[in-house]
Amino acid sequence: MQTPPIAPPTLREHIGDVLRQIRRTQGRTLREVSSEAQVSLGYLSEVERGQKEASSELLAAISQALGVPLSFVLREVADRIAVIEGVDIPDTVPALMMDGTLEDRITLLS
Amino acid sequence: MQTPPIAPPTLREHIGDVLRQIRRTQGRTLREVSSEAQVSLGYLSEVERGQKEASSELLAAISQALGVPLSFVLREVADRIAVIEGVDIPDTVPALMMDGTLEDRITLLS
Repeated sequence: MQTPPIAPPTLREHIGDVLRQIRRTQGRTLREVSSEAQVSLGYLSEVERGQKEASSELLAAISQALGVPLSFVLREVADRIAVIEGVDIPDTVPALMMDGTLEDRITLLS
Repeated sequence: MQTPPIAPPTLREHIGDVLRQIRRTQGRTLREVSSEAQVSLGYLSEVERGQKEASSELLAAISQALGVPLSFVLREVADRIAVIEGVDIPDTVPALMMDGTLEDRITLLS
């Protein structure tokens, strides 16, 4: 009997994992963070479990309530997805990645 | 008379900008990419203009149709938001950012 392929976590699930891990690292409760971000506790809980897409505005509010830049959350998520995608995470960033244009970077991918 | 503060682009708008820039760099039309990603042309157009949130599944489908890893799109977006947030983009990644845990990285932020 064949085992069906296991779908990798969605972006939504990665975002939820990262937000929850940041909150737990800070020793804060769902109640505290949801109150500070002015979102309902149930909504934050669903976002953390990857069951609900966070809108751009709410993701920004949750990041702010956690005291971390939104860019930090996104990079953490991007790094996790890069591992699953098998995309290298260089430990020194190639000069072109920093100085080049998006066009250069797209060309590098090809 | 005071000028009201200009809100920075939302995450949604950054994602749209990056997706559109990748598509245009490839010289492809909305029609081609929407067809390959199996999303409606109108939906893709709204996502590119930052008027609609792309669900995790559809963002993955659009990235795939563009032939770029989802992690690439997210990093590009994270880098743009980092600039607005004034978060440094190091041109060599500190060892801790690569080898440490998320907990270490959160601590570094504090």
